[in-house]
Amino acid sequence: MTPKKVIIADKMNQFSDHWNPRVIGELNGQQVRAVKLKGEFVWHDHDHEDELFLVIKGILKMEFRDRTETIYPGEFIIVPRKTEHRPVADEEVELLLFEPASTVNTGNVVDERTRTTLQKI
Amino acid sequence: MTPKKVIIADKMNQFSDHWNPRVIGELNGQQVRAVKLKGEFVWHDHDHEDELFLVIKGILKMEFRDRTETIYPGEFIIVPRKTEHRPVADEEVELLLFEPASTVNTGNVVDERTRTTLQKI
Repeated sequence: MTPKKVIIADKMNQFSDHWNPRVIGELNGQQVRAVKLKGEFVWHDHDHEDELFLVIKGILKMEFRDRTETIYPGEFIIVPRKTEHRPVADEEVELLLFEPASTVNTGNVVDERTRTTLQKI
Repeated sequence: MTPKKVIIADKMNQFSDHWNPRVIGELNGQQVRAVKLKGEFVWHDHDHEDELFLVIKGILKMEFRDRTETIYPGEFIIVPRKTEHRPVADEEVELLLFEPASTVNTGNVVDERTRTTLQKI
């Protein structure tokens, strides 16, 4: 069967909680994940995975130890493995993530927002 | 050095030719490619790579042998390996592609639009 398209806004309308990525696509061992953020995440890095953050709605501040990058809709940032980062969303942000299926959201840290099993929608 | 964001519109403004993808990001052996399409491409498939097409501007018709999917900005489609497809753009379309760095645009076909070396911008 040939594939159907994915309407990003429809996926975003299926959930409202924050820091809980949903899988909305899979290819080549990578996943496309939809997530909503609000507030400050935990400082972390990933030993083995680079991560792409594509902003769909809102303004994402990606903090690094030396500086902060501010990312608007229509923009993305690739955070290389082993690079400490902390996503911050003063108001709600909608994002797509592209990263290996193995990627745990909190990387080298475990806290109450760690998600090891992700829902597919 | 910590990474800089990528402004998709700025990358699109750096070229105007069609069917000639530029590399605008790399992660985990995958590439983010920006491309402009106009007209009908060649029917092809990829033996080893799944491909994601995310529409930024315009309307993409993705033809399969059994049906056509029409894809608007804010929507994407993942074409699995070994699936014959033909992108068609009646008017100019701006796309992002996510696919392995090994992916050749015309897949199992070689024609005058085949690109084996891509410019990084």
